[in-house]
Amino acid sequence: MPQHTPHAPFAEGQIGHDLLTRLDEAARYSQPGPGVTRLFCSPEHRQVLPLIEQWMELAGLTPELDAAGSLVGRCPNAQAGKPTLTLGSHQDSVVEGGKYDGMLGIAVPLIALEALRREGITLPYGVEVVAFGDEEGVRFPTTLVGSRALAGTTDPQQLKARDKQGISLKEALRSFGVEPDGIPALARDPANTLGFVEVHIEQGPRLEQHDHAVGVVTSLTGIERHQVTVSGKAGHAGTTPMPGRHDALVGASEMVLAVDRVLQTTEGLVGVVGQLDVHPNAVNVIPASVTFTVELRSPQSETRQRGHETIQAALDEVAERRELTLSMDNTYRADGAHCAEWIMHGLEQACATVEQPTDRMFSGAGHDGLAMQDVTDIGMLFVRCKEGLSHHPDESISAEDGEAAVRVIMAFLQQLDAFRCR
Amino acid sequence: MPQHTPHAPFAEGQIGHDLLTRLDEAARYSQPGPGVTRLFCSPEHRQVLPLIEQWMELAGLTPELDAAGSLVGRCPNAQAGKPTLTLGSHQDSVVEGGKYDGMLGIAVPLIALEALRREGITLPYGVEVVAFGDEEGVRFPTTLVGSRALAGTTDPQQLKARDKQGISLKEALRSFGVEPDGIPALARDPANTLGFVEVHIEQGPRLEQHDHAVGVVTSLTGIERHQVTVSGKAGHAGTTPMPGRHDALVGASEMVLAVDRVLQTTEGLVGVVGQLDVHPNAVNVIPASVTFTVELRSPQSETRQRGHETIQAALDEVAERRELTLSMDNTYRADGAHCAEWIMHGLEQACATVEQPTDRMFSGAGHDGLAMQDVTDIGMLFVRCKEGLSHHPDESISAEDGEAAVRVIMAFLQQLDAFRCR
Repeated sequence: MPQHTPHAPFAEGQIGHDLLTRLDEAARYSQPGPGVTRLFCSPEHRQVLPLIEQWMELAGLTPELDAAGSLVGRCPNAQAGKPTLTLGSHQDSVVEGGKYDGMLGIAVPLIALEALRREGITLPYGVEVVAFGDEEGVRFPTTLVGSRALAGTTDPQQLKARDKQGISLKEALRSFGVEPDGIPALARDPANTLGFVEVHIEQGPRLEQHDHAVGVVTSLTGIERHQVTVSGKAGHAGTTPMPGRHDALVGASEMVLAVDRVLQTTEGLVGVVGQLDVHPNAVNVIPASVTFTVELRSPQSETRQRGHETIQAALDEVAERRELTLSMDNTYRADGAHCAEWIMHGLEQACATVEQPTDRMFSGAGHDGLAMQDVTDIGMLFVRCKEGLSHHPDESISAEDGEAAVRVIMAFLQQLDAFRCR
Repeated sequence: MPQHTPHAPFAEGQIGHDLLTRLDEAARYSQPGPGVTRLFCSPEHRQVLPLIEQWMELAGLTPELDAAGSLVGRCPNAQAGKPTLTLGSHQDSVVEGGKYDGMLGIAVPLIALEALRREGITLPYGVEVVAFGDEEGVRFPTTLVGSRALAGTTDPQQLKARDKQGISLKEALRSFGVEPDGIPALARDPANTLGFVEVHIEQGPRLEQHDHAVGVVTSLTGIERHQVTVSGKAGHAGTTPMPGRHDALVGASEMVLAVDRVLQTTEGLVGVVGQLDVHPNAVNVIPASVTFTVELRSPQSETRQRGHETIQAALDEVAERRELTLSMDNTYRADGAHCAEWIMHGLEQACATVEQPTDRMFSGAGHDGLAMQDVTDIGMLFVRCKEGLSHHPDESISAEDGEAAVRVIMAFLQQLDAFRCR
């Protein structure tokens, strides 16, 4: 491995500029089309790794691809087995997503560590930065593969999940060049882990409304996902009389509206039918079956459960009335998570140090912290994004806000020993 | 080309048995999965051609692939330029269709001609049997490519239609090994064309209800197809508040129900939303856009037009209320067609000759006759199918009914000169 000599300290404004340049460069590793599409264990995932490795080396970390497809960069203290703070986020995107969701949380701590290194500052504890392979759950009907591996909570069933091409997660990891049998050995020792801190775009409008560059997260929403299959009977669209048809798409359409109605009227519950596929999907054939997903989010497990029950009953009613068969299977469930008070306080102190006004806020999105909470304390720093837009090619942050986030993380890392309560 | 020596005449019952055996064999050329999936200019289309060529040679016809991807077998009289009767149907299927829709109308006239040949009977006029490449309109948003070419009504725009992979019809024909620039030269001379007769499964329950093996078709339904695009705004499914979302799938679901409501309540109109695709189609992203098809059928152009206008108004109302953008484009239109009285009468006489009770009936499905009517008189013979089921892997006919259809066509061909009125 080549020795990287630290460069001169960053000038004022250079961090934000370099951060955005790096994220533009990472965004080039995408499927063709608008925005960024970079799925777990895809060719694009493979191709972006050398770029992240380069950032890690500039930060003084040694990169290594682990058995769950996460790229992990460790400082010498971490490699030597000292108590270690984990930072990082996910490399994957949704289909036609933006440049910042996930990748920002990899780039920010790496440029923060590089900046400290350039200033000749060494931290007295271990640090690792992780680029998780999968957080969006787009390719496989399962997610948080990398963070669950670190938490030691990987369910062997998870490795059997298949993508739309029928490739299992286990097969995909092997094709990607890692051995999933090594996943259990990745589990971190809680006694030797200081915490997990993730930087992420807000994905909502609140920071913009409050005119704050960064916010401190208090808790993460719980999420559950269900796969619904509606089956009717195919038939020729010209010769089958209209009355008595069992059109799966007409039934599914009524179900999508029923799901939306429950979501619009249940306080504290949000969700979506994001994916829907018709079979056989031909212009002149009565649809025989339709599959769709229902995602439900709430920090309160009871709210999600009540929403799920109300939706299930509404779908059952439609299926019975239209003489369609229905199945609704839970494919994913993660309870909400609370951030550790000492990390929230530490991030606030760091904001004060670098003169960034901030406040505390809730996260309506799930993040790797949902898995990491099982092994260590978690915390998150949100960064303002334009119009609260995310999962969209127009997702955007300013260089100033990016630099603010880096400087908060630099201060947090330098002050960690002072307020850490473990 | 090898000389085929005619075999001994078929024994009683052998024709029906051989017909079903041939159709079973043809059904093997299909994409994997239930039933038959054989699309226009696909590898399966290419692979089934040698089998049909073999049937043509046994019938004494010389096969040739034309510029529109139709396989055409001609008898020596036809090759010599004598007035010619055209028979045939389409080789393509819907996705997961059956063995009989289309292919029956290729196999029946070929086995009828072979049977006449075995009996030493020669016809005093020309005969050609055509295996059209495309009638279902599944791969491309256009159809009747082969029969329009014979009718001389190919619209050059039709060749620009693209499949889901973005391949144009023109490119697909070239990859298939034919030169679409040759299509205009395929137009038949009306003065030299006797008529077009197609054998097809009924695809409805009427023959079964009347206990008839075959029926004589009086007219074909008119068909129009529209492509609808609904655009909203993508967004993160957890952080975008439920009120104020512009979810394209929720809007499209309401539209599918509106289309169904118009179809259920308009006398003489049938139709379907058969194809629907969500974009980006990810479990945790608010759908940004949805495309779907609307197919409308009626023998009365005014009924279709009125239905289309009512549907357009209903969709506009949903789009406006939900602040979605909407486009509805007509991609296909074929007016209904009436069968020639002399062909209907000739088929009835042929039924009487072979002692098959029959009656006249309307076709709710479109067929190649919709295009062929522009160049010559058309007629159709329907064959009973089990439970009226078609466009389904369970599509089925009996060997007895298949043999009845072959014997009707044999009698029709032998008696043609007697009742032909041109």
